[in-house]
Amino acid sequence: MNSTTTQGHFQSQQASDVAVNIPTTVKPRIVIVGGGFGGIKLVRRLRKLEAHVVLIDKNNYHTFQPLLYQVATAALEPDSIAYPFREIFKDQKNFLFRMGEVQEILPAQNKIKTSIGEVDYDYLVLAAGSRTNYFGMKDFQQYAMPMKSIPEATQLRNLLLENMEKALLMDSIEERQRLMNVVIIGGGPTGVEMAGALGELQAHILPHDYPELNFKMMQIHVVDMDERLLRAMSAESSQSAAEFLKRFDINLWLKTKVVSYDGKTLVLSNGKQILTDTVIWAAGVAGGIMPGIKPQSIVPDGRIKVDAYHQVEGYNNIYALGDMACMVTDKTPHGHPMLASVAIQQARSLAKNFVRILAGKPLRLFVYKDPGVMTTVGRNHAVVDLKFMKFQGVLAWMVWLFVHLMALVGFRNKLVVFINWAWNYFSYDRGLRLIIKPSVR
Amino acid sequence: MNSTTTQGHFQSQQASDVAVNIPTTVKPRIVIVGGGFGGIKLVRRLRKLEAHVVLIDKNNYHTFQPLLYQVATAALEPDSIAYPFREIFKDQKNFLFRMGEVQEILPAQNKIKTSIGEVDYDYLVLAAGSRTNYFGMKDFQQYAMPMKSIPEATQLRNLLLENMEKALLMDSIEERQRLMNVVIIGGGPTGVEMAGALGELQAHILPHDYPELNFKMMQIHVVDMDERLLRAMSAESSQSAAEFLKRFDINLWLKTKVVSYDGKTLVLSNGKQILTDTVIWAAGVAGGIMPGIKPQSIVPDGRIKVDAYHQVEGYNNIYALGDMACMVTDKTPHGHPMLASVAIQQARSLAKNFVRILAGKPLRLFVYKDPGVMTTVGRNHAVVDLKFMKFQGVLAWMVWLFVHLMALVGFRNKLVVFINWAWNYFSYDRGLRLIIKPSVR
Repeated sequence: MNSTTTQGHFQSQQASDVAVNIPTTVKPRIVIVGGGFGGIKLVRRLRKLEAHVVLIDKNNYHTFQPLLYQVATAALEPDSIAYPFREIFKDQKNFLFRMGEVQEILPAQNKIKTSIGEVDYDYLVLAAGSRTNYFGMKDFQQYAMPMKSIPEATQLRNLLLENMEKALLMDSIEERQRLMNVVIIGGGPTGVEMAGALGELQAHILPHDYPELNFKMMQIHVVDMDERLLRAMSAESSQSAAEFLKRFDINLWLKTKVVSYDGKTLVLSNGKQILTDTVIWAAGVAGGIMPGIKPQSIVPDGRIKVDAYHQVEGYNNIYALGDMACMVTDKTPHGHPMLASVAIQQARSLAKNFVRILAGKPLRLFVYKDPGVMTTVGRNHAVVDLKFMKFQGVLAWMVWLFVHLMALVGFRNKLVVFINWAWNYFSYDRGLRLIIKPSVR
Repeated sequence: MNSTTTQGHFQSQQASDVAVNIPTTVKPRIVIVGGGFGGIKLVRRLRKLEAHVVLIDKNNYHTFQPLLYQVATAALEPDSIAYPFREIFKDQKNFLFRMGEVQEILPAQNKIKTSIGEVDYDYLVLAAGSRTNYFGMKDFQQYAMPMKSIPEATQLRNLLLENMEKALLMDSIEERQRLMNVVIIGGGPTGVEMAGALGELQAHILPHDYPELNFKMMQIHVVDMDERLLRAMSAESSQSAAEFLKRFDINLWLKTKVVSYDGKTLVLSNGKQILTDTVIWAAGVAGGIMPGIKPQSIVPDGRIKVDAYHQVEGYNNIYALGDMACMVTDKTPHGHPMLASVAIQQARSLAKNFVRILAGKPLRLFVYKDPGVMTTVGRNHAVVDLKFMKFQGVLAWMVWLFVHLMALVGFRNKLVVFINWAWNYFSYDRGLRLIIKPSVR
């Protein structure tokens, strides 16, 4: 390695990080943990900074999370919504990627411990997103399917299809139904999108694949504690989404909690019991765990408390953004919503502040500009809430398609997703009903 | 189930196969094990037969094996070369699919034992293809990577890319080289295609991803016992392939055997030791194991002996075709080559014979018509051997592309593969350098 070992910008770089082979230079090193929407936007925005930008992620690719539900429902290839970091930043000179999992932060030593060794930092940015939150319900943690990563979405696709194959083999109607029924816990965007996609599978696709099964018997349930779906959106949007889902005979259990699930029977707070082999957990997320950050700086749901400059409370060179951060200000006593748009805006703001930090200038406060929220409910139907305008239906759906297509990283991915969408739309078909299991070796 | 339990066509259907819920009818039941090239062709050709066609496969999809090496080298999505059986045959009325693994054949009872229960048959067709043959070399079985299925190809992609990530972390040149080097055992079509694709990755793609690594250090080796590559093809083709691979500085070890491999060092029969973490086994296949068939009917490499009517020796209602069958005739004392074209032609022949069997007519002999063989070696270069003509280079490459694109099942797959090829060709890029590991749950 042509490493120039010398003093770091404002603090010692003596500590060895041989294991990760990052050359030490005179430039300050900004280490970013997590390449989600916030992480990759921040890396990109720092491209002209006289700094050394190091991204650490446990995967070698960025996941386009908003379309995970389409992978799980056989509409898109898993690879179409993933993009390698090395490809995204191949022309960025001040950038370095390392694949590894962060195990602990050692703020006193300005370093992090990772699965591949220790990494020194001058500035640390925590952007590792959120994790599935089961609210301490062990049975759901054990039996319900989360959907926060590509392997999880693929696993869910496998399960849904395998259960249909198994249902064929059952003699008892009850057993068949248990294998065909799906319960989605959580009526937020993920739950609603998943429900709509499953409704379509049930109505148009699975009956052709499994003429031996009676899909009128298959039940799809959505359970939510709130009195309406999509509680982060307008009442009109909630209403429209609920109406659309009911067209597919999807059962909505609002103001209802889940009580227990033993892998076969799900019990609701109203006493209703649902036989099901497939429970999808879309009920909540919590901040990713980051050992080493002092407990006082962590809010009850696991997010890390930051000030309006993205600085983690109690540290002067650690920052957090996106789902991982809880920016407590007068206007946002509970932080911002855990949305891609927040992470992206915070990344932009933090990138600008890094310029100011290195120049010794005063920092600028972050102000969130709500660009609106949209959720797709199914074929030809989405709901869009903008600041001065709300609309639902076909136009909203076209806007949703366009926005998501454009947001995908890379032209190849855009093209392949577009073709799959067009194909699925016109053929009423999903070519990806594959049960591809990992090799047993 | 609306099953009409009655006597079978020519033998009893009394035995219960409740577990797999296949309705018994008056029509004879033809059970086909394996949905490779032969299996799916046979199902399709039997579509007008007054029979009940049951396909059993351990996967719910057909794998387009000739393009597995492109999945392993990040050129194609795994999903693009897989196609669900239920989709292929959705309009075929006399068809039924069951996902399960065959465990044993019980010829005396005319049934097979599978992972999902027992299945009765009137006629049984064994078309389960081949398995990787390590020729009893335990260390290679343990450490080398096979490439016969989509999960195996994906696993190989993961390994190749992960080893580059690991190489970055190493200080010693020796360790780096070990992680970057690749040895391919076997210089047949799979070995040659893999070598060419890896040569391209080394020359055009990996250096952009890993500017920190010196790819001049990376060695690609192909080892084969024979005195030339592609021994099933013409001398011109062998020569042309070898020349092309040498342009990438790929090391060809001909007339050479592998002796041992401990996961770190591979030893060749000429004494040469190669440090490598990645050994790809493309050296041989053997007939899939099918317990229950009498040992006398199995040839040493595991294939099942059939006569010129595809009938397994010693049974009057069991047939075998494709890689699984060894048709011993005067002209083919060791059977036919294990090629897709053989499997497909045998399926056509057997389909015609089934019409004759059910009509009580005499059967027709199978005669293989060699359509020629082709192998792609790399960008702009393939080798084609036809009966009256041999050609190599760009034109051969275009023929290869066209033939393989057309052979893919389904329009969506054709389109997505075409786009990926065009993309890779013009951009010198592979968007699919993803390490997607199965979910740990």
